[in-house]
Amino acid sequence: MLCVNVELKERRYPIHIGANLLKDTTVYPLKKGDKVMIVSNPTVAEYYLPELTETLQAIGCQISKVLLPDGEKYKTLDSLNLIFTALLEENHGRDTTIIALGGGVIGDVAGYAAASYQRGIPFIQIPTTLLAQVDSSVGGKTAVNHALGKNMIGAFYQPVAVIIDSMTLNTLPKREINAGLAEVIKYGAIADADFFQWLEQHIDELVALNQSTLQTCISRCCQIKAEVVARDEKEKGERAHLNLGHTFGHAIETHLGYGNWLHGEAVAVGMMMAAVLSEKLGKLSKQEAARLEKLLARANLPTLSPDSMQAQDYLPHMLRDKKVLGGKLRLVLLETLGRAYVASDIDNQAVLEAIRTCSQPDQ
Amino acid sequence: MLCVNVELKERRYPIHIGANLLKDTTVYPLKKGDKVMIVSNPTVAEYYLPELTETLQAIGCQISKVLLPDGEKYKTLDSLNLIFTALLEENHGRDTTIIALGGGVIGDVAGYAAASYQRGIPFIQIPTTLLAQVDSSVGGKTAVNHALGKNMIGAFYQPVAVIIDSMTLNTLPKREINAGLAEVIKYGAIADADFFQWLEQHIDELVALNQSTLQTCISRCCQIKAEVVARDEKEKGERAHLNLGHTFGHAIETHLGYGNWLHGEAVAVGMMMAAVLSEKLGKLSKQEAARLEKLLARANLPTLSPDSMQAQDYLPHMLRDKKVLGGKLRLVLLETLGRAYVASDIDNQAVLEAIRTCSQPDQ
Ligand SMILES: NC(=O)c1ccc[n+]([C@@H]2O[C@H](COP(=O)([O-])OP(=O)(O)OC[C@H]3O[C@@H](n4cnc5c(N)ncnc54)[C@H](O)[C@@H]3O)[C@@H](O)[C@H]2O)c1
Ligand SMILES: NC(=O)c1ccc[n+]([C@@H]2O[C@H](COP(=O)([O-])OP(=O)(O)OC[C@H]3O[C@@H](n4cnc5c(N)ncnc54)[C@H](O)[C@@H]3O)[C@@H](O)[C@H]2O)c1
Ligand SMILES: [Zn+2]
Ligand SMILES: [Zn+2]
Repeated sequence: MLCVNVELKERRYPIHIGANLLKDTTVYPLKKGDKVMIVSNPTVAEYYLPELTETLQAIGCQISKVLLPDGEKYKTLDSLNLIFTALLEENHGRDTTIIALGGGVIGDVAGYAAASYQRGIPFIQIPTTLLAQVDSSVGGKTAVNHALGKNMIGAFYQPVAVIIDSMTLNTLPKREINAGLAEVIKYGAIADADFFQWLEQHIDELVALNQSTLQTCISRCCQIKAEVVARDEKEKGERAHLNLGHTFGHAIETHLGYGNWLHGEAVAVGMMMAAVLSEKLGKLSKQEAARLEKLLARANLPTLSPDSMQAQDYLPHMLRDKKVLGGKLRLVLLETLGRAYVASDIDNQAVLEAIRTCSQPDQ
Repeated sequence: MLCVNVELKERRYPIHIGANLLKDTTVYPLKKGDKVMIVSNPTVAEYYLPELTETLQAIGCQISKVLLPDGEKYKTLDSLNLIFTALLEENHGRDTTIIALGGGVIGDVAGYAAASYQRGIPFIQIPTTLLAQVDSSVGGKTAVNHALGKNMIGAFYQPVAVIIDSMTLNTLPKREINAGLAEVIKYGAIADADFFQWLEQHIDELVALNQSTLQTCISRCCQIKAEVVARDEKEKGERAHLNLGHTFGHAIETHLGYGNWLHGEAVAVGMMMAAVLSEKLGKLSKQEAARLEKLLARANLPTLSPDSMQAQDYLPHMLRDKKVLGGKLRLVLLETLGRAYVASDIDNQAVLEAIRTCSQPDQ
């Protein structure tokens, strides 16, 4: 079992990573008599709720649960309210711990519920998708969507512990695994050249779900994200680097309608666009951009813009992104493989060219 | 004009108190070009929105506004969502400031919206009821209600400034003024014997809305609350003293149905019950309890339990209060006029007797 500590100004908390942690009573910061509310969805609950329940019973917890409908479109204030209703119907007070069992959607909604219920109750994350394990469960961002915008309502709120059971990935659809690998590759690209190289050596094992390789990988990603977050908890500076490829990616997701491409797939293409733009600006070398492309392809990720999207479709979306300050496009680009920087004052024409370079040849 | 500074670990912010501050451009922490979203209700907007709008225009702000329906029953997630919709429809980003113009309901909802929109945007309080000026606008508690419980969903979130225009009290119904005075008297009773005595000398001027007496009074209350909050931001200890009379009061509010008695009226009776219980426990003297009763009466506040409520109606509500930990009744009582303490292990029989002492004679 691996353990990464997240160090924040007010508090530190552990991220445990290992096989079969769902069954391991020792990693839960809970004791006999503690009350918990498990938040999950029917898909994940069917696989893992019995196991988790058994473990919590062994600890001696009083267990309540609430299942939200599965899917990004249920990441709403209404789902949030289902959690509050369940908490109040069963008389839960400020000493109840919310446990999120699921992917990023469950983690984000349950985390925001924990931040808000009676102005804040303890919260444990048990992320069950690769994306949630390497990204959404670390860093304390919680949110729900509004009809007019994604993740528009939320809080910064840290869990008391994150418990990552890598065995849960065995039931995750392959396409979701690959989407998670896009974020994994992102960490190497923005912050850690050695890790990028390690990924080039181990990507096939990750795709094949080799447990020990997965654990090493997840732990390194959590560490990188935890370090960035510890240095910049409220997202004022360096944390922006985590958005490599995301401004392009969001344009793809919005244009195609959320859910047609997975987030990680859109980010993969977005990272290639950022890499090509970095190359055009004289930062990244041609070889480095090619290495990124190859690694993404080996993770079965797309590296070209969707067929149905033209280069000029991108900019309007990108200029509406919430990272835009005062109408000016700011993009995370690569200095080199392993080091990101934030560029403002970028010529829109150069952006368009980078998008074209990453488009299907016949456009 | 008076000014109280609230000193918190992370930040300090000012509370400005004076006549006609709605018109005073110098007290707003805003500059030309800043975007604001005013949150109010039709009642308050009719009186004060034109004045505030003019001042913000003079500063050069870009002004949006949203009106929520008036009343505690609209202190809900739905009203919250009206604010988010208004913010998103007009493309507001993280640099917009929310301004709450109204009583405690508007302050609580608007504050929670500010805490949550894009995980937190700046927030200015302009409280227009006496209760909001001396209590709800200070301390950073924000919340909405759930069908199953009051103030169950919220955040601790501090404003960048509180602007108290004491002239707004001229349009406030007298009954609301008196209800606010209950909280004023509470501050004297729990924390400041001199202030209690000052109130005995000036209560008639306060009831008559003498502006300079009101300002002195509001400023002293804000100071007391700010000091308590600064020492105990997240409500772990001393902040509990602010709940003097509230556990009894909540029982009255719940039993009668919210809105039949005003909160301050229920708290007035609750404070008398706490005083009588303190006396029975050998803390407060008979004379002190009588002084409290007289001061409340001079502020036109009730000091006896409602006709329709029996002594035994109280305990079930009181034991369900969220301040109860592990089924044990904890009550804020008075050591003396000017000093409160938290009592646990109180005999339920003594509580019942105190309630009976404060009930109509024929019960
Ligand atoms: N808070 C953050 O910092 C942050 C960062 C990145 C993404 N996010 C959010 O995360 C969300 C996406 O998360 P996601 O990709 O995990 O999507 P998801 O939560 O929707 O999970 C994807 C699908 O996999 C299913 N699933 C989950 N675990 C499974 C398992 N072990 N076996 C089988 N099926 C399983 C889910 O039920 C769902 O159908 C988005 O809402 C995004 O905004 C948040
Ligand atoms: N956040 C906190 O720390 C805290 C503390 C105490 C109370 N509260 C909350 O405050 C709320 C009660 O606040 P309230 O007593 O101000 O009630 P309120 O906001 O409902 O105002 C009372 C009535 O007066 C009207 N009004 C407001 N200002 C006016 C003015 N200047 N002239 C004429 N009419 C005016 C309002 O429209 C309303 O109809 C409750 O929801 C309570 O939970 C919060
Ligand atoms: Zn992402
Ligand atoms: Zn009160």
